Amino acid sequence: MVKEEKSKRSEVKGDKDVKAVSVKKNENFSEWFSEIIQKAELADLRYNVKGLLVFQPWSVLAMEKMYGILETALQRKGHKPYWFPTLIPESNLKKESSHVKGFTPEVFWVTQGGETKFTEKLALRPTSETAFYQMFSTWIRSYKDLPFKTYQRANVFRYETKATRPFLRSREFHWIETHCVHKTKEDAMKQVYEDMETTKEVLHDNFGLPFIFFERPAWDRFAGADRTFAADVLNPDGKVVQQPSTHLLSQEFPKGFDVKFKDNDGKEKYPWITCYGPAISRIFASVVIVHGDDKGLRFPWSISPLQVVIVPIKDNDKVLAKAEELKKKIAETIGIMNVEIDKSEKSAGEKFNHWEMKGVPLRIDLGEKEIDAKKLSIFRRDLNKRESIDEKELVNYIHKIAKEFDANLVKQADHIFDNLVKEVSNMKEMKKIIEEGGIASCNFCSVDKEGAKCAEMVEKEIGAQVRGTKLGEENKIGKCAVCGKAGKERVYIARAY
Amino acid sequence: MVKEEKSKRSEVKGDKDVKAVSVKKNENFSEWFSEIIQKAELADLRYNVKGLLVFQPWSVLAMEKMYGILETALQRKGHKPYWFPTLIPESNLKKESSHVKGFTPEVFWVTQGGETKFTEKLALRPTSETAFYQMFSTWIRSYKDLPFKTYQRANVFRYETKATRPFLRSREFHWIETHCVHKTKEDAMKQVYEDMETTKEVLHDNFGLPFIFFERPAWDRFAGADRTFAADVLNPDGKVVQQPSTHLLSQEFPKGFDVKFKDNDGKEKYPWITCYGPAISRIFASVVIVHGDDKGLRFPWSISPLQVVIVPIKDNDKVLAKAEELKKKIAETIGIMNVEIDKSEKSAGEKFNHWEMKGVPLRIDLGEKEIDAKKLSIFRRDLNKRESIDEKELVNYIHKIAKEFDANLVKQADHIFDNLVKEVSNMKEMKKIIEEGGIASCNFCSVDKEGAKCAEMVEKEIGAQVRGTKLGEENKIGKCAVCGKAGKERVYIARAY
Repeated sequence: MVKEEKSKRSEVKGDKDVKAVSVKKNENFSEWFSEIIQKAELADLRYNVKGLLVFQPWSVLAMEKMYGILETALQRKGHKPYWFPTLIPESNLKKESSHVKGFTPEVFWVTQGGETKFTEKLALRPTSETAFYQMFSTWIRSYKDLPFKTYQRANVFRYETKATRPFLRSREFHWIETHCVHKTKEDAMKQVYEDMETTKEVLHDNFGLPFIFFERPAWDRFAGADRTFAADVLNPDGKVVQQPSTHLLSQEFPKGFDVKFKDNDGKEKYPWITCYGPAISRIFASVVIVHGDDKGLRFPWSISPLQVVIVPIKDNDKVLAKAEELKKKIAETIGIMNVEIDKSEKSAGEKFNHWEMKGVPLRIDLGEKEIDAKKLSIFRRDLNKRESIDEKELVNYIHKIAKEFDANLVKQADHIFDNLVKEVSNMKEMKKIIEEGGIASCNFCSVDKEGAKCAEMVEKEIGAQVRGTKLGEENKIGKCAVCGKAGKERVYIARAY
Repeated sequence: MVKEEKSKRSEVKGDKDVKAVSVKKNENFSEWFSEIIQKAELADLRYNVKGLLVFQPWSVLAMEKMYGILETALQRKGHKPYWFPTLIPESNLKKESSHVKGFTPEVFWVTQGGETKFTEKLALRPTSETAFYQMFSTWIRSYKDLPFKTYQRANVFRYETKATRPFLRSREFHWIETHCVHKTKEDAMKQVYEDMETTKEVLHDNFGLPFIFFERPAWDRFAGADRTFAADVLNPDGKVVQQPSTHLLSQEFPKGFDVKFKDNDGKEKYPWITCYGPAISRIFASVVIVHGDDKGLRFPWSISPLQVVIVPIKDNDKVLAKAEELKKKIAETIGIMNVEIDKSEKSAGEKFNHWEMKGVPLRIDLGEKEIDAKKLSIFRRDLNKRESIDEKELVNYIHKIAKEFDANLVKQADHIFDNLVKEVSNMKEMKKIIEEGGIASCNFCSVDKEGAKCAEMVEKEIGAQVRGTKLGEENKIGKCAVCGKAGKERVYIARAY
């Protein structure tokens, strides 16, 4: 029914393609990423406050769909949505000592309303533990209230001292933060595993992002956490990008905010709190990076701003009428907002390049030849190939593609980590692997505080970081690849954004 | 098939109903509104920054659906979504003189990042004209770029000097703002009418809110607008609530931000800009106010956080198994997130009261009697009556309700304005109508600046405001009801929140 087509259509070239990426992704990743952001119109960096950017429709439409998928998953697992205020009094931040130390260097402070100077500064939330937990102290009374599972969709603010980078690190970004309260530490750890399962379901299975789960070493924990877990996605330049992290918070939080519950034994106890923070604008960056190619973006079907575009090859009534007819039929299947006819004044070749840059999953190239033959010529961006189908098969074809498109992207993406992790036993080997764009795995003296010195050495000598221990992996005993002392852990080392 | 049921079920009373509203809506509206917010768990007012509140799941879930409906309508009409930064440099605000004068008394100022004091203050956006328009100056070049229709979903901040009131007026609120650029003033006015049509489609036809459209008098325009239009919804206490307003901005905006285009005659011209600002958290207040009754909320079907709740009357395996079976069947029709079984430990009566307070459209009360008779007893909140249907008709019944439920609420709400507007010809009559909770209509000297004195007199003597002229209504000549001079306009006067 569907056959690969090697028609003359593929010879239609863009007249003067102002839109193509000028470098190859695998040769100059950094420039490739910058060009994609500009040429696919994802964000405009010319806003006149440093480190802030304007997200444009093509990224916002996709990120709204990503929010939808993630929120549905969280609600299905019993999280309830809240909207908390953006402003947090300074005194709230001070209630947990390591938290305030970790975040205050990065806080934007509101000090004035109209002409009135405030007696207490207000923080633009860098994260909302200290807003949520004071309310938890009024909402939670009994063990029957637990687990208490919340989330909010919010924008957060960090006065970054590191270099900012669009989508990956800006001074304002868009995320979801969950905050959950549990009876016991065991329940809290179950929540950590559930969060990681959510990351797998949504980021991997849905958005097609491959990653490795790590427990972070002591020196790289979230400010105020007993344990921190995170998913690292890999960039083509060999650097990893931290995606959702999830934290088992220290008991300082419930104590600092007086969050207590009466247990079924009648005793008042402090609960355990976990939080999880998938940053949608950062995950979007990984979608661009993992799936994009030298022609531009490739969006997964489920989050593409547009799923099908129809390009009329000739601008006559017969072709346009057929295009409208097809659009109507497709809209009945996938919704009117997911299909569009490109009626712009560009040449056919320019349109092809334009929609490949934009990463639209399916493109129907429609000319009189196809209409007369009752055939459709369809370009699919997952496989970058053209297929010919009978016109009457269109709706079935779209159903089929909707099912298999994302799975194809996942399959391609999963190869990224193939052969990338290499075992090393000393700094020299480690340096070689890292410089080749790989991830080094080795024995390591300790991921507690006493290992920090070795981690600093790796950072200084190789410019790479100890990402942590891999979840579910057994420790091996062996000499630390850095200091040569007895190693207690097996860690993974990579460069990171 | 469906018959009204007067069974013994309605005699099941709440044991000790801690949840009921203690006052009648029509007797003490203000207290009724406060209690609904607390008892239906819509927002918590105990957050420790004045004028800010925590929106709880039951309002957030509804407001998210409201956002969805409004955004779909805007996208269908060609608006593209953006996410702009929350922070706007002070110098941007100063580029349009009446705008800065109108808004700076209400601006929250960010003056510091970490330990760094900024040389220029940054505003938390009170509205985003001055963020969008500097970008418009880089994006818009030619008449071919017009109309340029944008919107963003955002939270905005106003350091209100007036008393705040949950949902109606807080210092941070959640809205949509559209900003559109047009070739001519005529095109801009067409956009104003399209915005008002959107208000009608979404707020009236979908959310069931009745309102009157006004053009505001000169002294009540948006800061920087040539003309301001707004929809006023009526509260049961006779006060009106301003809902979406739409503005034809003055040419100072494109001039101040250097937004220009080359027209098809080759000349550079300044475009006309319109903006429109539906505040979701405020519209939500009107949904509560217009549809709620002495038992609690009544949500329209399309925005209810939950559409169907199943209450097992007996807590035995037979009843619970049937409840699960029904839930599964209903979920296939309306989605798993829209149907729930109430398995709490409350008594049946308490559950009935609880779900009536929460405003869930349909409640299925399930006992052994119903199971044996293959009947279902369903309480519908639009008509506040119980119906009995054959179990096998359930899916059809839900389809029917989904269609007619919101129309029933609209019909009931539309009666609110019946006989409320009364013609008056002097201040004495005006005062009487206003004090009876009505809206006065009268001749008025002028809605330009020179009429401001009469408006002040009305405010001072009666505590009411000139809401403006009614759109599409012809002016009558007659004496101004305030000063007695020749009247040029017909205006409407009401108290307002």
